[in-house]
Amino acid sequence: MNEHIPPDFQVPGFLAAGIAAGIKKTQVKDFALLFSEDPATAAGVFTANRVKAAPVLLSRERLKSGKARAILANSGCANACTGKKGIADGQTLSRRVASSLKIAPGEVLLASTGVIGKPLPLEIMEGCLPALVSSLSPQGLADAAQAIMTTDTKPKAVISRDRVNGEEVTVAGIAKGAGMISPRMATLLVFVLTDADISAGALRKALNEGVQGSFNRITVDGDMSTNDTLLVLANGRAKNRRILPGTPGFKKFSALLSGVLLSLARKTVADGEGVTKVVRIVVEGARTGTDAEKVVRAVANSPLVKTAFFGEDANWGRILCAVGYSGAPVDPDKVDIFFDQVQVARKGQAVGTETEEPATAVMKKGEYTVRIRLNQGKKMAYLFTTDFSFDYVKINASYRS
Amino acid sequence: MNEHIPPDFQVPGFLAAGIAAGIKKTQVKDFALLFSEDPATAAGVFTANRVKAAPVLLSRERLKSGKARAILANSGCANACTGKKGIADGQTLSRRVASSLKIAPGEVLLASTGVIGKPLPLEIMEGCLPALVSSLSPQGLADAAQAIMTTDTKPKAVISRDRVNGEEVTVAGIAKGAGMISPRMATLLVFVLTDADISAGALRKALNEGVQGSFNRITVDGDMSTNDTLLVLANGRAKNRRILPGTPGFKKFSALLSGVLLSLARKTVADGEGVTKVVRIVVEGARTGTDAEKVVRAVANSPLVKTAFFGEDANWGRILCAVGYSGAPVDPDKVDIFFDQVQVARKGQAVGTETEEPATAVMKKGEYTVRIRLNQGKKMAYLFTTDFSFDYVKINASYRS
Repeated sequence: MNEHIPPDFQVPGFLAAGIAAGIKKTQVKDFALLFSEDPATAAGVFTANRVKAAPVLLSRERLKSGKARAILANSGCANACTGKKGIADGQTLSRRVASSLKIAPGEVLLASTGVIGKPLPLEIMEGCLPALVSSLSPQGLADAAQAIMTTDTKPKAVISRDRVNGEEVTVAGIAKGAGMISPRMATLLVFVLTDADISAGALRKALNEGVQGSFNRITVDGDMSTNDTLLVLANGRAKNRRILPGTPGFKKFSALLSGVLLSLARKTVADGEGVTKVVRIVVEGARTGTDAEKVVRAVANSPLVKTAFFGEDANWGRILCAVGYSGAPVDPDKVDIFFDQVQVARKGQAVGTETEEPATAVMKKGEYTVRIRLNQGKKMAYLFTTDFSFDYVKINASYRS
Repeated sequence: MNEHIPPDFQVPGFLAAGIAAGIKKTQVKDFALLFSEDPATAAGVFTANRVKAAPVLLSRERLKSGKARAILANSGCANACTGKKGIADGQTLSRRVASSLKIAPGEVLLASTGVIGKPLPLEIMEGCLPALVSSLSPQGLADAAQAIMTTDTKPKAVISRDRVNGEEVTVAGIAKGAGMISPRMATLLVFVLTDADISAGALRKALNEGVQGSFNRITVDGDMSTNDTLLVLANGRAKNRRILPGTPGFKKFSALLSGVLLSLARKTVADGEGVTKVVRIVVEGARTGTDAEKVVRAVANSPLVKTAFFGEDANWGRILCAVGYSGAPVDPDKVDIFFDQVQVARKGQAVGTETEEPATAVMKKGEYTVRIRLNQGKKMAYLFTTDFSFDYVKINASYRS
C-alpha cells in the first residue's frame, strides 16, 4: 500500500479504479473511474479561465441537474483547445462508460489534465474502458488518486469521518495539482466522495464555503488552468437525516468537508513544482477586504519574493516593494513585517540587524508564516504560497519533452 | 575602452565620473556623478510604486522647477524604506556635492539602487565625494554607466545625433536595470544628457512620449521597484533655435530621444537576470486598448509561458491559457497564434503537428515574436519580455549574500 494513502481509504457505496491505459507514453496509471452504486447528489467548481477545456464544459452543463453517478478522468491529455472534436470525444466516452455502468450519459462527469491543444487518444481510451470498469472496487480510490497525477511527486488522499444528523458520515477526497497552481482554482483535479445524505443545494453551499478557505487560498505560480475541476458526489448511504442548508447538521457537515478540502489543498501546494518551502502570507489591518486581497496576492505571486524564500534570504524589502505595487492604497510608513514571531520591519523600516539571524533561522524551516500588518484598518486575508526553485524552471521548461 | 560603450561617448558641456567608493563590498565602481557646466532644463519619470525611495522623493520634488545641473547616483544601497534618516542623508549628500560644484543643493538630483531597507553608508560616501568631483571629465560617462550597475552583466550606453532647429544635437543615455524589470517603469536607473536647447515643457512631453514606447514596454518579472528613476538634462550647448512643443523641431527631437530610450530599453531587457531569450509579444485584433494591454501583460508575465520560452517548447496552449485568465473578455475560439511567421494555433486549436518543428526552430533563436491575433477588433499592444531561466532563480535567491 502506498504510504501517502490513508488506511481504510474508501467510502460506503462507492467503487473506483485507476489503470495504465497508455494515454501517457510511460507505463503509469493515467485513466480513472469513480462510481456510485446508488443515485447521488453532485456539485462542482470549475476554472474561471475563459478558455475552458471540453470536459469542463460538459461537466458544468451536466451538474445543473444536481445529480451524477460517475467521474471519468484521465491524465496525459487535457482535451483543451480542441473545439467541437473535443466535445464530441467527451460525449463518446460518456456514452460508452454509461452503457457499461447502466446509467445515463448525463450522469457521467468528465475531467482531464495534461497537454493543451492535442485531441484525446480516443481509440486507446475506448479500448481500455472495459478493463477500467471491470477493475472497479471499493478499495480502488487509491489507484484513481495515482491515475490523475501529472508532475505531482505523490498522490494526495484525505479521509475524515464524523457523526452528522445521527449517523457516522465519511468524506474522502483525492487531488492532483502540482503545476499551474494558482488562486481562484488552480490546475487542479479534486474529487470528493461522501456517503452523507444531503440536498443538492446544501452540498453546493458547503462546497463553495469549503473552497473559499482552501483551494482558493493557495498559489504556486499565479497561472490559472483551462481544466480546473472540483467535483463532489454524495450518495446517502450513511442514512443520516437528510442535511439541509441552515441547520446544525449542515454546519457539522460543512466543517467536515472544509477540513478535507483544506487538508488536500495543503498537500497540493506542498507538492507544487519544485517546491522546497510552503509559506503562509497573512495580511492584517487593511482598510478593506479588497485591499487585503490585492496585497496578499501581489506578495504571494512576486517572483522576487519567491526566489528569496528559496534562497532563505530575509529580504523584507522585496515584500514591502510588492505591497507598494499591489494597487492597494497602502501607506508604507505604517507597515510592520514578521517572519513567524521575528519582526523584521517596523513602520516601513528595518528593525535592526540583530533580527537578521533569527529571521534567517525561520526561513530555513520548510513551513512558516510571513505576517504583514498594514495598521490601516481591520480587514485581513491569507494565502499559502511557495518558493520558486531551480526545479520549478527545470520541470516547466521540459514539461512536454 | 569597454566594448559596450560607443565611440566618442560624450555630450558637449557635460562632465561625468564613476568611481569605486566602497559602498559595495567588492572593489567595483559604485558612485557616479553627472554634471552640466551650464544651467540645464530637466525632466524625470519615477516609479509608480507607493513605496518610494528617499532619492525618488527628493528628485521628484526638485524637478518641479524644471531645472537641474547634477545627478548623484550610487549602486549597492537603495536608500529605500529608510524613513526620515534616508531623506536627511540625501539632503546631506546634496549639500556637499552642491558646495563642491558651486551650485544650489536644489539643482542636485539623486538616484540609488541596491538593497532595500539599509541606510546609506554616509561617511564612506562623504569621504569619497572630493575624489568623485575631481574625477569629472567629458569622457567620464562610460565610468558612470559602470558605477550604476548591480546584477547587470554589461553597461548600457547609447548615443545618437541629428540636426534639430539648425544645429547638430547630441543625445546620450546610460541605463542599469537587470533585476526587477517590469512594465510601468522597472528597477531601472536611466540618465539621458543632451546639448539641445529645449523648454522644460517640451522636454517633459518628449520624455513622456519616449517612455511610453520604450521602458513602459519591457518586462522581466512583473515586479516594480521602489527606486525607478529616469532623468534627462538638456543644457542648450548646441545653440539650436529653442525647441518648443508642437513644432517640427519638437517632432525631430522627440524622435531622437525616443530612439535612444528604445535602444536603451532593448539593451536593458536583453541583459535581464538570467535572460537567454528576448521575446516580443504582440496582441492584435483586440476590441479595446485595455483588452489588448491585459492580454499582453498576462502572457508576458506568465511564469509557465516564460519557462517554456527557456525550454524552447512551442507550448502555445500555455499562451492561450494566459489569454484566457487575463481578465479581458476574449473569445478563445477566435484566437490565432504565431511564432514569427509560423502559425501554431488557428481559432483556438492546433494547426497540426507539422508546424511543431518550424515553431521549435523559431524558439531556438535569441530573439523572436509571438503574435496573438484575437480577431475581435482593431486594437493592439506589444511588450518585450524574456524567458525564466535557472540563472534567474540563482541570481535572485542569492542576491544579498
